[in-house]
Amino acid sequence: MTEERTDENVVYVGSKPPMSYVLAVISRFSDSDDVVIKARGRAISRAVDIAEITRNRFATDTEVKEIKISTENLTNEEGRTSNVSSIEIYLVKKKDK
Amino acid sequence: MTEERTDENVVYVGSKPPMSYVLAVISRFSDSDDVVIKARGRAISRAVDIAEITRNRFATDTEVKEIKISTENLTNEEGRTSNVSSIEIYLVKKKDK
Repeated sequence: MTEERTDENVVYVGSKPPMSYVLAVISRFSDSDDVVIKARGRAISRAVDIAEITRNRFATDTEVKEIKISTENLTNEEGRTSNVSSIEIYLVKKKDK
Repeated sequence: MTEERTDENVVYVGSKPPMSYVLAVISRFSDSDDVVIKARGRAISRAVDIAEITRNRFATDTEVKEIKISTENLTNEEGRTSNVSSIEIYLVKKKDK
């Protein structure tokens, strides 16, 4: 059986205050052993803040497993395309507490 | 002999336009097989852009080896401390081209 990732494990970071996403991450951990924090463009800095706040202050039994960065090609309202960077931060519960 | 990392391999990202840092990274690769891009706070998003622009457009023989995030405790001019997130993106030349 291969590992299946559904959207339930993913927290997409937008422009809300960081704490609302931290709470979303903690809530996901209540029925999952791993959570992915995703962000694009300027929200990337906020995604890193959220991962750090989560693992340092609220869910100290979690750690960063992997971080991936990539480039997405977006089309805006006027039909023009632009490249935007994105990040995926994989947080997991630590194996040995 | 252990691997030694000097500041020569590091590009610190501040508030200049991304391309000036991309050029700095490419220049470091001329006499090194690995370069670290470091940034704090809001510059984190820019650091990801710089890594992506470098490996996708200018130094396509390089790849992201590892990404680390951490929290630094900074003291501001008034003596107050605050936590700020930081990122380190390790770019390396690909082994097999």
